[in-house]
Amino acid sequence: MPSESRPFAEPRGRFVVLDGPDGGGKTTQVARLVEWLRSRGLEVVACRDPGGTAIGEKLRAILLDRGDSPPAMRTEMLLFMAARAQLVSEVIEPALERGAIVVSDRFLLANIVYQGHAGGLSVEELRTVGRIAVNGLAPDLTMILDLPVELGRARVGSARDRLEDRSDDYHRAVRNGFLEELETLQGASMVIDASCDPETVTTRIRAEVSRVLAID
Amino acid sequence: MPSESRPFAEPRGRFVVLDGPDGGGKTTQVARLVEWLRSRGLEVVACRDPGGTAIGEKLRAILLDRGDSPPAMRTEMLLFMAARAQLVSEVIEPALERGAIVVSDRFLLANIVYQGHAGGLSVEELRTVGRIAVNGLAPDLTMILDLPVELGRARVGSARDRLEDRSDDYHRAVRNGFLEELETLQGASMVIDASCDPETVTTRIRAEVSRVLAID
Repeated sequence: MPSESRPFAEPRGRFVVLDGPDGGGKTTQVARLVEWLRSRGLEVVACRDPGGTAIGEKLRAILLDRGDSPPAMRTEMLLFMAARAQLVSEVIEPALERGAIVVSDRFLLANIVYQGHAGGLSVEELRTVGRIAVNGLAPDLTMILDLPVELGRARVGSARDRLEDRSDDYHRAVRNGFLEELETLQGASMVIDASCDPETVTTRIRAEVSRVLAID
Repeated sequence: MPSESRPFAEPRGRFVVLDGPDGGGKTTQVARLVEWLRSRGLEVVACRDPGGTAIGEKLRAILLDRGDSPPAMRTEMLLFMAARAQLVSEVIEPALERGAIVVSDRFLLANIVYQGHAGGLSVEELRTVGRIAVNGLAPDLTMILDLPVELGRARVGSARDRLEDRSDDYHRAVRNGFLEELETLQGASMVIDASCDPETVTTRIRAEVSRVLAID
Protein backbone atom coordinates (compact mmCIF):
# COMPACT_ATOMS: atom_id res chain seq x y z
CA MET A 1 0.00 0.00 0.00
CA PRO A 2 2.55 2.61 -1.10
CA SER A 3 0.17 5.59 -0.95
CA GLU A 4 -0.35 5.04 2.78
CA SER A 5 3.17 5.75 3.90
CA ARG A 6 4.38 8.22 1.28
CA PRO A 7 5.43 11.55 2.82
CA PHE A 8 4.02 14.85 1.55
CA ALA A 9 7.52 16.04 0.74
CA GLU A 10 6.79 17.75 -2.58
CA PRO A 11 3.15 18.71 -2.97
CA ARG A 12 2.77 20.63 -6.19
CA GLY A 13 -0.61 22.13 -5.26
CA ARG A 14 -1.54 24.34 -2.33
CA PHE A 15 -3.78 23.59 0.65
CA VAL A 16 -5.96 26.37 2.11
CA VAL A 17 -8.15 25.97 5.21
CA LEU A 18 -10.92 28.25 6.48
CA ASP A 19 -11.75 27.57 10.11
CA GLY A 20 -13.03 29.27 13.25
CA PRO A 21 -16.02 29.40 15.63
CA ASP A 22 -19.58 28.72 14.49
CA GLY A 23 -21.39 31.61 12.81
CA GLY A 24 -18.32 33.05 11.10
CA GLY A 25 -19.69 32.32 7.61
CA LYS A 26 -17.12 29.67 6.62
CA THR A 27 -19.40 27.83 4.21
CA THR A 28 -20.28 30.99 2.29
CA GLN A 29 -16.69 32.19 2.21
CA VAL A 30 -15.35 28.80 1.04
CA ALA A 31 -17.86 28.85 -1.84
CA ARG A 32 -16.88 32.41 -2.81
CA LEU A 33 -13.16 31.70 -2.61
CA VAL A 34 -13.52 28.59 -4.75
CA GLU A 35 -15.55 30.47 -7.35
CA TRP A 36 -13.04 33.31 -7.43
CA LEU A 37 -10.03 30.99 -7.81
CA ARG A 38 -11.78 29.06 -10.60
CA SER A 39 -12.58 32.33 -12.40
CA ARG A 40 -8.82 32.82 -12.60
CA GLY A 41 -8.43 29.50 -14.44
CA LEU A 42 -7.08 27.51 -11.50
CA GLU A 43 -8.09 23.94 -10.69
CA VAL A 44 -9.74 24.04 -7.27
CA VAL A 45 -11.02 21.18 -5.12
CA ALA A 46 -13.43 22.20 -2.36
CA CYS A 47 -14.09 19.96 0.64
CA ARG A 48 -15.32 20.04 4.20
CA ASP A 49 -14.00 18.27 7.27
CA PRO A 50 -15.71 16.15 8.58
CA GLY A 51 -17.21 14.94 5.32
CA GLY A 52 -16.12 15.17 1.72
CA THR A 53 -16.03 11.40 1.09
CA ALA A 54 -18.69 8.69 1.14
CA ILE A 55 -17.20 7.25 4.34
CA GLY A 56 -16.76 10.72 5.83
CA GLU A 57 -20.42 11.57 5.28
CA LYS A 58 -21.48 8.35 7.03
CA LEU A 59 -19.25 9.26 9.97
CA ARG A 60 -20.55 12.83 9.98
CA ALA A 61 -24.07 11.43 10.33
CA ILE A 62 -22.99 9.31 13.32
CA LEU A 63 -21.28 12.34 14.89
CA LEU A 64 -24.28 14.64 14.52
CA ASP A 65 -26.84 12.04 15.62
CA ARG A 66 -28.80 12.98 18.76
CA GLY A 67 -29.50 9.29 19.51
CA ASP A 68 -29.79 7.60 22.91
CA SER A 69 -26.27 6.23 22.87
CA PRO A 70 -24.02 9.10 21.79
CA PRO A 71 -20.32 8.59 21.07
CA ALA A 72 -17.93 9.01 24.02
CA MET A 73 -15.48 11.92 23.71
CA ARG A 74 -12.66 9.61 22.62
CA THR A 75 -14.88 7.84 20.10
CA GLU A 76 -15.96 11.20 18.70
CA MET A 77 -12.32 12.25 18.41
CA LEU A 78 -11.34 9.07 16.56
CA LEU A 79 -14.32 9.36 14.20
CA PHE A 80 -13.32 12.91 13.29
CA MET A 81 -9.77 11.64 12.74
CA ALA A 82 -11.00 8.73 10.58
CA ALA A 83 -13.12 11.01 8.41
CA ARG A 84 -10.11 13.31 8.02
CA ALA A 85 -7.73 10.44 7.17
CA GLN A 86 -10.10 9.36 4.40
CA LEU A 87 -10.44 12.93 3.12
CA VAL A 88 -6.65 13.28 2.95
CA SER A 89 -6.15 9.94 1.23
CA GLU A 90 -9.07 10.06 -1.19
CA VAL A 91 -9.37 13.77 -2.03
CA ILE A 92 -6.68 16.14 -0.74
CA GLU A 93 -3.50 14.15 -1.43
CA PRO A 94 -4.45 13.25 -5.05
CA ALA A 95 -5.54 16.85 -5.74
CA LEU A 96 -2.29 18.33 -4.38
CA GLU A 97 -0.27 15.81 -6.36
CA ARG A 98 -1.80 16.94 -9.64
CA GLY A 99 -1.21 20.61 -8.77
CA ALA A 100 -4.70 21.70 -7.69
CA ILE A 101 -5.58 24.19 -4.95
CA VAL A 102 -7.56 22.51 -2.19
CA VAL A 103 -9.89 24.71 -0.12
CA SER A 104 -11.26 23.02 2.98
CA ASP A 105 -14.08 24.10 5.32
CA ARG A 106 -12.32 23.19 8.62
CA PHE A 107 -9.45 20.70 9.19
CA LEU A 108 -7.43 19.21 12.06
CA LEU A 109 -7.19 22.53 13.93
CA ALA A 110 -10.95 22.55 14.65
CA ASN A 111 -10.71 19.08 16.17
CA ILE A 112 -7.91 20.13 18.52
CA VAL A 113 -9.81 23.26 19.55
CA TYR A 114 -13.31 21.80 20.02
CA GLN A 115 -12.30 18.63 21.82
CA GLY A 116 -9.07 19.76 23.45
CA HIS A 117 -9.27 23.44 24.41
CA ALA A 118 -13.07 23.35 24.85
CA GLY A 119 -13.90 19.67 25.34
CA GLY A 120 -11.43 18.50 27.96
CA LEU A 121 -9.44 15.92 26.00
CA SER A 122 -5.66 16.26 26.07
CA VAL A 123 -4.46 18.75 23.45
CA GLU A 124 -1.20 16.80 23.25
CA GLU A 125 -3.03 13.53 22.52
CA LEU A 126 -5.16 15.22 19.88
CA ARG A 127 -2.05 16.58 18.16
CA THR A 128 -0.39 13.15 18.29
CA VAL A 129 -3.35 11.25 16.84
CA GLY A 130 -3.96 14.09 14.36
CA ARG A 131 -0.44 13.97 12.97
CA ILE A 132 -0.79 10.22 12.36
CA ALA A 133 -4.30 10.56 10.86
CA VAL A 134 -3.28 13.18 8.26
CA ASN A 135 0.05 11.48 7.51
CA GLY A 136 1.92 14.69 8.36
CA LEU A 137 0.02 16.96 5.96
CA ALA A 138 -0.22 20.63 7.07
CA PRO A 139 -2.14 23.47 5.33
CA ASP A 140 -0.10 26.06 3.41
CA LEU A 141 -2.54 28.72 4.62
CA THR A 142 -5.02 28.69 7.51
CA MET A 143 -7.49 31.57 7.98
CA ILE A 144 -9.54 31.81 11.18
CA LEU A 145 -12.88 33.60 10.71
CA ASP A 146 -13.08 35.11 14.17
CA LEU A 147 -16.08 36.79 15.81
CA PRO A 148 -17.43 37.42 19.33
CA VAL A 149 -19.26 34.46 20.91
CA GLU A 150 -22.57 36.37 21.24
CA LEU A 151 -22.58 37.31 17.57
CA GLY A 152 -21.78 33.75 16.52
CA ARG A 153 -24.62 32.40 18.67
CA ALA A 154 -27.05 34.98 17.26
CA ARG A 155 -26.09 34.09 13.67
CA VAL A 156 -26.38 30.35 14.23
CA GLY A 157 -29.81 30.93 15.86
CA SER A 158 -32.00 27.88 16.26
CA ALA A 159 -30.34 25.89 13.48
CA ARG A 160 -28.26 23.96 15.97
CA ASP A 161 -27.09 20.38 15.74
CA ARG A 162 -25.70 18.40 18.63
CA LEU A 163 -22.20 19.90 18.39
CA GLU A 164 -23.50 23.48 18.43
CA ASP A 165 -25.92 23.02 21.34
CA ARG A 166 -23.46 23.96 24.09
CA SER A 167 -22.95 26.68 26.69
CA ASP A 168 -21.45 30.12 26.13
CA ASP A 169 -18.42 29.10 28.23
CA TYR A 170 -17.81 26.28 25.77
CA HIS A 171 -17.97 28.65 22.81
CA ARG A 172 -15.65 31.12 24.54
CA ALA A 173 -13.12 28.32 25.06
CA VAL A 174 -13.49 27.49 21.36
CA ARG A 175 -12.77 31.06 20.28
CA ASN A 176 -9.76 31.39 22.57
CA GLY A 177 -8.54 27.94 21.51
CA PHE A 178 -8.45 28.93 17.85
CA LEU A 179 -6.49 32.09 18.65
CA GLU A 180 -4.00 30.15 20.80
CA GLU A 181 -3.56 27.23 18.38
CA LEU A 182 -2.93 29.58 15.47
CA GLU A 183 0.53 30.23 16.92
CA THR A 184 1.47 26.55 16.66
CA LEU A 185 0.66 26.00 12.96
CA GLN A 186 3.35 25.10 10.43
CA GLY A 187 2.10 27.01 7.37
CA ALA A 188 0.98 30.65 7.01
CA SER A 189 -1.93 31.56 9.29
CA MET A 190 -4.00 34.59 10.21
CA VAL A 191 -7.12 35.84 11.94
CA ILE A 192 -9.84 37.37 9.74
CA ASP A 193 -12.42 39.60 11.46
CA ALA A 194 -15.71 37.89 10.57
CA SER A 195 -17.92 40.24 12.57
CA CYS A 196 -18.20 42.71 9.67
CA ASP A 197 -20.28 42.27 6.52
CA PRO A 198 -19.60 39.19 4.32
CA GLU A 199 -18.33 41.23 1.35
CA THR A 200 -15.57 42.78 3.45
CA VAL A 201 -14.60 39.31 4.70
CA THR A 202 -14.50 38.01 1.13
CA THR A 203 -12.23 40.88 0.06
CA ARG A 204 -9.86 40.27 2.95
CA ILE A 205 -9.69 36.52 2.24
CA ARG A 206 -8.92 37.14 -1.45
CA ALA A 207 -6.14 39.54 -0.50
CA GLU A 208 -4.52 37.02 1.85
CA VAL A 209 -4.82 34.13 -0.60
CA SER A 210 -3.36 36.27 -3.39
CA ARG A 211 -0.45 37.25 -1.21
CA VAL A 212 0.40 33.86 0.29
CA LEU A 213 -0.23 31.78 -2.82
CA ALA A 214 1.24 34.45 -5.15
CA ILE A 215 -1.89 34.68 -7.31
CA ASP A 216 -2.44 37.91 -9.28
CA MET B 1 -16.82 14.67 31.21
CA PRO B 2 -15.04 13.09 34.20
CA SER B 3 -15.41 9.51 32.94
CA GLU B 4 -13.30 10.36 29.89
CA SER B 5 -10.10 11.07 31.71
CA ARG B 6 -10.37 8.81 34.74
CA PRO B 7 -7.50 6.31 34.94
CA PHE B 8 -8.15 2.59 35.33
CA ALA B 9 -6.15 2.54 38.53
CA GLU B 10 -8.39 0.21 40.53
CA PRO B 11 -10.56 -1.98 38.35
CA ARG B 12 -12.44 -4.38 40.57
CA GLY B 13 -13.36 -6.78 37.76
CA ARG B 14 -11.09 -8.74 35.42
CA PHE B 15 -10.61 -8.35 31.68
CA VAL B 16 -9.97 -11.46 29.55
CA VAL B 17 -9.26 -11.36 25.79
CA LEU B 18 -9.27 -14.23 23.30
CA ASP B 19 -7.44 -13.34 20.12
CA GLY B 20 -5.41 -14.87 17.29
CA PRO B 21 -5.53 -15.66 13.56
CA ASP B 22 -8.77 -16.41 11.71
CA GLY B 23 -10.07 -19.96 12.02
CA GLY B 24 -8.90 -20.50 15.61
CA GLY B 25 -12.46 -20.83 16.94
CA LYS B 26 -12.50 -17.65 19.04
CA THR B 27 -16.24 -17.09 18.79
CA THR B 28 -17.06 -20.62 19.96
CA GLN B 29 -14.50 -20.51 22.75
CA VAL B 30 -15.66 -17.10 24.00
CA ALA B 31 -19.24 -18.44 24.21
CA ARG B 32 -18.09 -21.55 26.10
CA LEU B 33 -15.90 -19.58 28.49
CA VAL B 34 -18.72 -17.14 29.25
CA GLU B 35 -21.17 -19.98 29.88
CA TRP B 36 -18.71 -21.76 32.15
CA LEU B 37 -17.91 -18.64 34.20
CA ARG B 38 -21.63 -17.87 34.58
CA SER B 39 -22.28 -21.45 35.73
CA ARG B 40 -19.95 -20.66 38.62
CA GLY B 41 -22.14 -17.71 39.66
CA LEU B 42 -19.91 -14.97 38.31
CA GLU B 43 -21.17 -11.89 36.48
CA VAL B 44 -19.74 -12.02 32.98
CA VAL B 45 -19.99 -9.49 30.16
CA ALA B 46 -19.16 -10.83 26.69
CA CYS B 47 -18.21 -8.53 23.84
CA ARG B 48 -16.42 -8.47 20.52
CA ASP B 49 -14.04 -5.91 19.07
CA PRO B 50 -14.90 -4.33 16.66
CA GLY B 51 -18.55 -4.20 17.66
CA GLY B 52 -20.35 -4.59 20.95
CA THR B 53 -22.05 -1.17 20.88
CA ALA B 54 -24.58 0.44 18.56
CA ILE B 55 -21.88 2.77 17.18
CA GLY B 56 -19.36 -0.06 16.99
CA GLU B 57 -21.71 -2.20 14.90
CA LYS B 58 -22.25 0.69 12.46
CA LEU B 59 -18.46 1.05 12.15
CA ARG B 60 -18.02 -2.70 11.77
CA ALA B 61 -20.43 -2.57 8.82
CA ILE B 62 -18.37 0.22 7.20
CA LEU B 63 -15.16 -1.76 7.81
CA LEU B 64 -16.48 -4.99 6.28
CA ASP B 65 -18.17 -3.30 3.30
CA ARG B 66 -16.82 -4.36 -0.10
CA GLY B 67 -18.00 -1.07 -1.67
CA ASP B 68 -16.35 0.89 -4.47
CA SER B 69 -14.69 3.38 -2.16
CA PRO B 70 -13.08 1.32 0.61
CA PRO B 71 -11.49 2.96 3.64
CA ALA B 72 -7.79 3.83 3.36
CA MET B 73 -5.49 1.95 5.76
CA ARG B 74 -5.30 4.90 8.17
CA THR B 75 -9.07 5.38 8.06
CA GLU B 76 -9.57 1.69 8.75
CA MET B 77 -7.18 1.93 11.70
CA LEU B 78 -8.98 4.93 13.19
CA LEU B 79 -12.39 3.28 12.74
CA PHE B 80 -11.18 0.20 14.62
CA MET B 81 -9.85 2.51 17.31
CA ALA B 82 -13.12 4.46 17.49
CA ALA B 83 -15.19 1.29 17.84
CA ARG B 84 -12.82 0.14 20.58
CA ALA B 85 -12.95 3.48 22.42
CA GLN B 86 -16.73 3.25 22.49
CA LEU B 87 -16.62 -0.37 23.66
CA VAL B 88 -14.29 0.57 26.51
CA SER B 89 -16.36 3.59 27.56
CA GLU B 90 -19.82 2.11 27.17
CA VAL B 91 -19.32 -1.57 28.09
CA ILE B 92 -15.94 -2.64 29.46
CA GLU B 93 -15.15 0.17 31.89
CA PRO B 94 -18.61 0.15 33.57
CA ALA B 95 -18.52 -3.67 33.81
CA LEU B 96 -15.06 -3.73 35.40
CA GLU B 97 -16.10 -1.00 37.81
CA ARG B 98 -18.97 -3.06 39.15
CA GLY B 99 -16.73 -6.11 39.53
CA ALA B 100 -17.73 -8.18 36.48
CA ILE B 101 -15.49 -10.38 34.36
CA VAL B 102 -15.32 -9.07 30.80
CA VAL B 103 -14.53 -11.61 28.05
CA SER B 104 -13.76 -10.04 24.67
CA ASP B 105 -13.46 -11.63 21.24
CA ARG B 106 -10.35 -9.69 20.09
CA PHE B 107 -9.03 -6.33 21.36
CA LEU B 108 -6.27 -3.82 20.59
CA LEU B 109 -3.65 -6.53 19.97
CA ALA B 110 -5.44 -7.72 16.81
CA ASN B 111 -5.42 -4.20 15.40
CA ILE B 112 -1.67 -3.86 15.95
CA VAL B 113 -1.03 -7.25 14.35
CA TYR B 114 -3.35 -7.03 11.33
CA GLN B 115 -2.55 -3.46 10.33
CA GLY B 116 0.98 -3.15 11.68
CA HIS B 117 2.81 -6.49 11.42
CA ALA B 118 0.77 -7.64 8.41
CA GLY B 119 -0.67 -4.44 6.93
CA GLY B 120 2.31 -2.11 6.68
CA LEU B 121 1.24 0.66 9.07
CA SER B 122 3.73 1.65 11.75
CA VAL B 123 3.48 -0.65 14.80
CA GLU B 124 4.68 2.26 16.95
CA GLU B 125 1.90 4.55 15.65
CA LEU B 126 -0.69 1.84 16.22
CA ARG B 127 0.46 1.41 19.81
CA THR B 128 0.39 5.17 20.38
CA VAL B 129 -3.11 5.69 18.99
CA GLY B 130 -4.27 2.49 20.69
CA ARG B 131 -3.12 3.60 24.13
CA ILE B 132 -5.07 6.85 23.73
CA ALA B 133 -8.16 5.10 22.33
CA VAL B 134 -8.49 2.63 25.22
CA ASN B 135 -7.56 5.23 27.84
CA GLY B 136 -4.69 3.03 29.06
CA LEU B 137 -6.79 -0.10 29.72
CA ALA B 138 -4.90 -3.41 29.34
CA PRO B 139 -6.33 -6.96 29.60
CA ASP B 140 -5.56 -8.96 32.76
CA LEU B 141 -5.28 -12.08 30.60
CA THR B 142 -4.76 -12.47 26.84
CA MET B 143 -4.96 -15.90 25.21
CA ILE B 144 -3.86 -16.35 21.58
CA LEU B 145 -5.64 -19.23 19.82
CA ASP B 146 -2.78 -20.17 17.52
CA LEU B 147 -2.88 -22.47 14.50
CA PRO B 148 -1.01 -23.02 11.22
CA VAL B 149 -2.03 -20.67 8.38
CA GLU B 150 -3.18 -23.50 6.10
CA LEU B 151 -5.46 -24.94 8.76
CA GLY B 152 -6.94 -21.53 9.52
CA ARG B 153 -7.66 -20.92 5.83
CA ALA B 154 -9.25 -24.35 5.46
CA ARG B 155 -11.49 -23.76 8.47
CA VAL B 156 -12.59 -20.31 7.33
CA GLY B 157 -13.34 -21.80 3.89
CA SER B 158 -15.47 -19.67 1.58
CA ALA B 159 -17.12 -17.66 4.35
CA ARG B 160 -14.73 -14.78 3.84
CA ASP B 161 -15.39 -11.09 4.30
CA ARG B 162 -13.15 -8.31 2.99
CA LEU B 163 -10.65 -8.58 5.85
CA GLU B 164 -10.20 -12.33 5.41
CA ASP B 165 -9.77 -12.26 1.63
CA ARG B 166 -5.98 -11.88 1.64
CA SER B 167 -2.88 -13.85 0.63
CA ASP B 168 -1.15 -16.60 2.58
CA ASP B 169 1.84 -14.28 3.14
CA TYR B 170 -0.49 -11.84 4.84
CA HIS B 171 -1.87 -14.55 7.11
CA ARG B 172 1.62 -15.78 7.94
CA ALA B 173 2.58 -12.23 8.97
CA VAL B 174 -0.55 -12.17 11.12
CA ARG B 175 0.36 -15.38 12.91
CA ASN B 176 3.94 -14.29 13.52
CA GLY B 177 2.75 -10.85 14.60
CA PHE B 178 0.55 -12.30 17.33
CA LEU B 179 3.42 -14.42 18.63
CA GLU B 180 5.82 -11.44 18.65
CA GLU B 181 3.36 -8.96 20.18
CA LEU B 182 2.50 -11.37 22.98
CA GLU B 183 5.87 -10.57 24.55
CA THR B 184 5.00 -6.86 24.85
CA LEU B 185 1.69 -7.20 26.72
CA GLN B 186 1.23 -5.83 30.23
CA GLY B 187 -1.05 -8.49 31.74
CA ALA B 188 -0.75 -12.29 31.73
CA SER B 189 -0.62 -13.79 28.24
CA MET B 190 -0.20 -17.19 26.62
CA VAL B 191 -0.46 -19.16 23.40
CA ILE B 192 -3.16 -21.83 23.21
CA ASP B 193 -2.77 -24.50 20.53
CA ALA B 194 -6.00 -24.18 18.55
CA SER B 195 -5.14 -26.82 15.96
CA CYS B 196 -6.50 -29.62 18.12
CA ASP B 197 -10.17 -30.42 18.77
CA PRO B 198 -12.37 -27.67 20.29
CA GLU B 199 -13.00 -29.60 23.53
CA THR B 200 -9.28 -29.75 24.28
CA VAL B 201 -8.98 -26.02 23.59
CA THR B 202 -11.91 -25.34 25.93
CA THR B 203 -10.28 -27.36 28.71
CA ARG B 204 -6.98 -25.55 28.31
CA ILE B 205 -8.67 -22.13 28.35
CA ARG B 206 -10.60 -23.01 31.52
CA ALA B 207 -7.40 -24.11 33.21
CA GLU B 208 -5.59 -20.87 32.36
CA VAL B 209 -8.52 -18.67 33.40
CA SER B 210 -8.86 -20.58 36.68
CA ARG B 211 -5.18 -20.16 37.40
CA VAL B 212 -4.76 -16.47 36.46
CA LEU B 213 -8.10 -15.25 37.84
CA ALA B 214 -7.91 -17.57 40.88
CA ILE B 215 -11.28 -19.18 40.20
CA ASP B 216 -11.92 -22.66 41.63
